[in-house]
Amino acid sequence: MDLLLFQLEKHIGKPLYEQLYTGIKEAIITKKITVGEKLPSKRQLADFLNISQTTIELAYGQLLAEGYIASKPRIGYFVEEIDELPFIEKQTNTLPAYEKKNYATDFSPGKIDEDSFPFTIWRKYAKEMLDTSFKELLQIGDRQGEYELRVQIASYLYQSRGINCTPEQIVIGSGTEHLMPMILRLFDGAKMAIENPGYSAIPRNQYEQSIVPVNVDADGLQIDELEKTDANLVYITPSHQFPTGAVLSAARRTQLLKWASQKVSRYIIEDDYDSEFRYIGKPIPALHGLDQNDKVIYMSTFTKSLMPSLRVAYFVLPHALLVRYNEILSYYSATVPRFDQHILAHFMKDGHFAKHLNRMRKIYRKKHDKLISILDKHYPSIEVSGDIAGMHILIQVPHEKSEFELQQLAAQNDIYILPISNYLFAPIPLGQPTFLLGFGGIPLEQIEQHIHKLMKIWGVSKC
Amino acid sequence: MDLLLFQLEKHIGKPLYEQLYTGIKEAIITKKITVGEKLPSKRQLADFLNISQTTIELAYGQLLAEGYIASKPRIGYFVEEIDELPFIEKQTNTLPAYEKKNYATDFSPGKIDEDSFPFTIWRKYAKEMLDTSFKELLQIGDRQGEYELRVQIASYLYQSRGINCTPEQIVIGSGTEHLMPMILRLFDGAKMAIENPGYSAIPRNQYEQSIVPVNVDADGLQIDELEKTDANLVYITPSHQFPTGAVLSAARRTQLLKWASQKVSRYIIEDDYDSEFRYIGKPIPALHGLDQNDKVIYMSTFTKSLMPSLRVAYFVLPHALLVRYNEILSYYSATVPRFDQHILAHFMKDGHFAKHLNRMRKIYRKKHDKLISILDKHYPSIEVSGDIAGMHILIQVPHEKSEFELQQLAAQNDIYILPISNYLFAPIPLGQPTFLLGFGGIPLEQIEQHIHKLMKIWGVSKC
Repeated sequence: MDLLLFQLEKHIGKPLYEQLYTGIKEAIITKKITVGEKLPSKRQLADFLNISQTTIELAYGQLLAEGYIASKPRIGYFVEEIDELPFIEKQTNTLPAYEKKNYATDFSPGKIDEDSFPFTIWRKYAKEMLDTSFKELLQIGDRQGEYELRVQIASYLYQSRGINCTPEQIVIGSGTEHLMPMILRLFDGAKMAIENPGYSAIPRNQYEQSIVPVNVDADGLQIDELEKTDANLVYITPSHQFPTGAVLSAARRTQLLKWASQKVSRYIIEDDYDSEFRYIGKPIPALHGLDQNDKVIYMSTFTKSLMPSLRVAYFVLPHALLVRYNEILSYYSATVPRFDQHILAHFMKDGHFAKHLNRMRKIYRKKHDKLISILDKHYPSIEVSGDIAGMHILIQVPHEKSEFELQQLAAQNDIYILPISNYLFAPIPLGQPTFLLGFGGIPLEQIEQHIHKLMKIWGVSKC
Repeated sequence: MDLLLFQLEKHIGKPLYEQLYTGIKEAIITKKITVGEKLPSKRQLADFLNISQTTIELAYGQLLAEGYIASKPRIGYFVEEIDELPFIEKQTNTLPAYEKKNYATDFSPGKIDEDSFPFTIWRKYAKEMLDTSFKELLQIGDRQGEYELRVQIASYLYQSRGINCTPEQIVIGSGTEHLMPMILRLFDGAKMAIENPGYSAIPRNQYEQSIVPVNVDADGLQIDELEKTDANLVYITPSHQFPTGAVLSAARRTQLLKWASQKVSRYIIEDDYDSEFRYIGKPIPALHGLDQNDKVIYMSTFTKSLMPSLRVAYFVLPHALLVRYNEILSYYSATVPRFDQHILAHFMKDGHFAKHLNRMRKIYRKKHDKLISILDKHYPSIEVSGDIAGMHILIQVPHEKSEFELQQLAAQNDIYILPISNYLFAPIPLGQPTFLLGFGGIPLEQIEQHIHKLMKIWGVSKC
């Protein structure tokens, strides 16, 4: 081998061993040094280059580790055979135009009132957490979520939702969409009924085979229709059906619990996503509280009640499913950073979550009432529905244009609004164009102007 | 209807409307008031109870909302039919004993050195984030993860791993286990080869049908064996095979890239989980850097390099897959709290991540060298393997007891250690009992005592 292949520049910043390693590697790749050839011995090369043997050792070691050369004990280093790299003419793919647009008017139901968040208190707890007991929170935590937070959730559920459960039954994760596939894994392959229209808690295309849409009416999910299916699971939002706002009637609640009790394999997944916000009377009690037979998997989230960006949701497993959970899902780790879990736990423990909910209920009630009064007063042709709860209402807009056309028209004028057809899993008889009007994120004093703007664009006359 | 059914106690704390609502509800459930019966009119009841009509209205409203009564306009309120609640004799399930034990000696490979975490700097960034620009971070963020963090990751990958990608190609999520199912959804139903032994990045029981284990030897995954399978995907840890520590040789790298280039549908998932920590020479270059054909989905995590409890991992999508990603996974939201993403982005931007890595590399190198020297000096019968990288080594223990027996023996003496058989997807010829010896979480000065403790319990004599 020609020793002149090995060249170093001693005065540039790159370490000598790295120069040598790169040089030899390139020589091998470009076939300047051929397969099977013996490299110069360390001493030989060190003498030639006038550098230390250690430098050579480092370079050879790296080439050895990456498999460019092999070592034969007491004989030396030899070049390994390496295929030429395949190279396909690159397609000139441009990046897909994935845009995250901010609209001047945003009626999406997922927005919260960001101005009313208790920053000062939250900051205080976050800083306290940062200053104390930080070290042990670096390592991986409990896979069901931090015990301290589960204790707080159990206590909250008992006091506010009439749900009696232990922290051991609670599993914390990053959002409903993340938790649903975990729940479904407990019932592999089981058919699940979902509400139509309803929240898309699981990816439609992935679970197409196992999903049965069941229609919703003014009393919530039609349990008679559920009974006709072969589903053993049902995903339901009984306190405030998403998106219609219907409350599952008492008769249907008992009918549903009866349905579940008829087979060991039947379970109800109750998604109680925004039950905290009901503006007249008491919150609708959770279905879980009525259940005598351990047939309800209760599920909720802090998305609406605190903030969407924290990504904290949880479910409560019936006792009968805990063993199966431990068998099947022992492999998961809780996805929420431990640090955030502890901030939330402390915040709840000192009563700030309950206070925050009471405060927000008043704020959202004002927004809700304002919205309704504007629609009542100026746009009597528009029918409002959805219960007196949550952070959106439904409006039916008598119009010759389709939902899609109206949505596009709004979007062209910088308004984000979602039609109910976005939440359909199966066709329902076509009524008037119906939209979700989310009001959570719109400041109270701006509600009027945004509504007038939307109606003007749609050509709905004001009176 | 007997008006005496309605009783209120005016001097207890519970609001009157709530007492009334609860009373009527219970009367309906217990059939004291029968189906179809008309409730007294609001005025009638208000007069009888000597309270305001508003209170009655609230109570009736709640019963109406929950479906216990129905209203017939201008006629009155009637009790709805409600099934009796089913009640199955409860099984006396005791809670499963799911224990999260802390061992006195913990050799698990997932532990990091918690004493060396740069708390002061991290705290500074966290507090700065808390004090500034907080409001907008409450709402839901970009579904691929915060752009600012993706910019930092792209820049880090370019500088440290030779990977050229744009922030648009990066998707952030809560850990490898959370991201893998997302990647698999891009290839629905495709067969995937995995390393044997290897990291269980996806739940075995769920994907059993579509997984093909391929054996690993001293040069990493046996690509010849991969070529014999019908897999179109391969999940691989080329820089530091988990758990064996093998580095995929240069010859196999090109062979693997060639394999992928032969079919449009073939892709390589490169998990580069701990490439930052190599203790001799330069880090092994990422496979992604060699790939000319956009065939590698690169994946990594901050679990080892920063902390496991933050739960931040990411993958880099080839351009050809971005369109499909936007079609199929548009429904996902990034699972990492936005707040934490921004702390990390700022931390990286100011160079602290690079500094931290350099510092930790030295610390882990010391621990690694110490561990090796103790084993070499006192326990020559034990063979050490695994590359000079990462946070664990492999030890082969000549012993008449089985891996399982040795693990149990250790556990009984408060030592946590994992056998290699934990990572097997298919049987391999039985060798000597082999264990992963994780050293990341053990303080340097304690390594010696923990090793002696383990060996004493196993009856391996010291010399």
